[in-house]
Amino acid sequence: MRDFSQDHRWLSINTATVRKSLGQEQPLTGIIEACARLQIPAISPWRDQVAASGLPTIRQQVKTHGLKLSGYCRGGMFTATDGAGLSAAHDDNRRAVDEACELGAACLVLVVGALPGALAGKAAHKDIALSRQQVHDGIGELLGHARASGMPLAIEPLHPMYAADRACVNTLEHALDLCDTFDPEQTGALGVAVDVYHVWWDPKLQAQIARAGAKRLLAFHVCDWLTPTTDLLNDRGMMGDGVIDIPRIRGWVEDQGFTGFSEVEIFSTANWWQRERDEVLNTCIERHRSAV
Amino acid sequence: MRDFSQDHRWLSINTATVRKSLGQEQPLTGIIEACARLQIPAISPWRDQVAASGLPTIRQQVKTHGLKLSGYCRGGMFTATDGAGLSAAHDDNRRAVDEACELGAACLVLVVGALPGALAGKAAHKDIALSRQQVHDGIGELLGHARASGMPLAIEPLHPMYAADRACVNTLEHALDLCDTFDPEQTGALGVAVDVYHVWWDPKLQAQIARAGAKRLLAFHVCDWLTPTTDLLNDRGMMGDGVIDIPRIRGWVEDQGFTGFSEVEIFSTANWWQRERDEVLNTCIERHRSAV
Repeated sequence: MRDFSQDHRWLSINTATVRKSLGQEQPLTGIIEACARLQIPAISPWRDQVAASGLPTIRQQVKTHGLKLSGYCRGGMFTATDGAGLSAAHDDNRRAVDEACELGAACLVLVVGALPGALAGKAAHKDIALSRQQVHDGIGELLGHARASGMPLAIEPLHPMYAADRACVNTLEHALDLCDTFDPEQTGALGVAVDVYHVWWDPKLQAQIARAGAKRLLAFHVCDWLTPTTDLLNDRGMMGDGVIDIPRIRGWVEDQGFTGFSEVEIFSTANWWQRERDEVLNTCIERHRSAV
Repeated sequence: MRDFSQDHRWLSINTATVRKSLGQEQPLTGIIEACARLQIPAISPWRDQVAASGLPTIRQQVKTHGLKLSGYCRGGMFTATDGAGLSAAHDDNRRAVDEACELGAACLVLVVGALPGALAGKAAHKDIALSRQQVHDGIGELLGHARASGMPLAIEPLHPMYAADRACVNTLEHALDLCDTFDPEQTGALGVAVDVYHVWWDPKLQAQIARAGAKRLLAFHVCDWLTPTTDLLNDRGMMGDGVIDIPRIRGWVEDQGFTGFSEVEIFSTANWWQRERDEVLNTCIERHRSAV
């Protein structure tokens, strides 16, 4: 297992972690400058943040600083109530693949979607099996374009508390079943993003990480599970402040040969998004060394 | 599949559902009177509610009204930081078995516990595997007394969002693995409580319900998953108000030969606990007929 205690050469910052500073939305350009200044070697930006600054601007800025992209957030949201919706999702996902290529990302992270309409508060139906079938079909359809583009797709199983509204793939086992279906040769074109927040509770986690193997472990995300957790979406903790044994899980991932970045992804309305950006980034650096 | 649309002969009320009326804590005696008046044939009371009214009083009242107990809530909480804590948990669980027997409950529901201290906001450690081992050992130890008492133990897998603080058994598969370990002959002494709120998201749910079979399906609990869910514990929805396809899951359970009650268990600080008790109970009756 790699020694993280001496430096932060394997740290990546998911830019959602500092998308707000003192409660105010921050432009991605400033976030990138701050990361570069603090010698953080990698980021994982969100599409909406990239679009707001302009993709060419971000591409140039990333290049100038020699930053790596541990991933690109995000594709997915494959489910819909009709063919037009499915088509629109497919088209949007093709664009996400293209953007990830332009930015030189290591993978496109897929948050697969769930019951259509649920995220807006009104699910169009209750048939989660249908949503899962649409996700299955959507990944299969997108993979051709992703393969041709040389962009790996990383299915991110989300915590089961998001099964209704964000992602109906909720276990690493399910995600790997999809990988087996569409990439049985384990070429690396289709794999998983392992976020400790989503999977730490799973009694089969170690076994499924071993099943994934190096070829399919495309991304490793960290934050922490707080007790109590006061909000289902935006109350993630800083590494070390919660109950997840992160080093143990990182050990399992590295036992498979994973040598990528450890990406910090924290959504925190009431705490970290209320602080100064540099305080948050410096805390990420410190906790990367001490608690990951 | 049984027809629930014509009456509510298979309805049970978990008494937590109406433990507050207009925001005020209600004595169990009054809850029982109300259920009897509305011809609700079964309840599932909580230990603290029974203790507050006195067990002999409740036993007599239940008998007078000819009420059934679809379960008794709850045993479990097997985890601790030391031997004294484990012993205390064991003793308390023996008492819970004895109380369940005195009340004539169909089963004792087990919420197994998780990281010690986490429920109070400060976990003593992060080793969920250790907690799972303690749960394994605790169930094995309790089962002897439960068998001798003729009281079935129903392991209730809780939603993974409770893995840190309430129960580290989070899938039906894990619960059934424990059943296989301690009751391989499927005598009915050890089984599961299937609560749709906890398990609806699981892609393996149908298969695991089939694996359980009639002997191990000891209880069936219903409520609904709201979108959005605003609180991890106390924002459960009334059946029909959320996204769970309850009839489909009930169908799977009944396909295995389950013929027990459908127990309504709703924790709802901001909504149902603010209403009049009879309004809540009448809504349970109506939704039992239309949405379960």
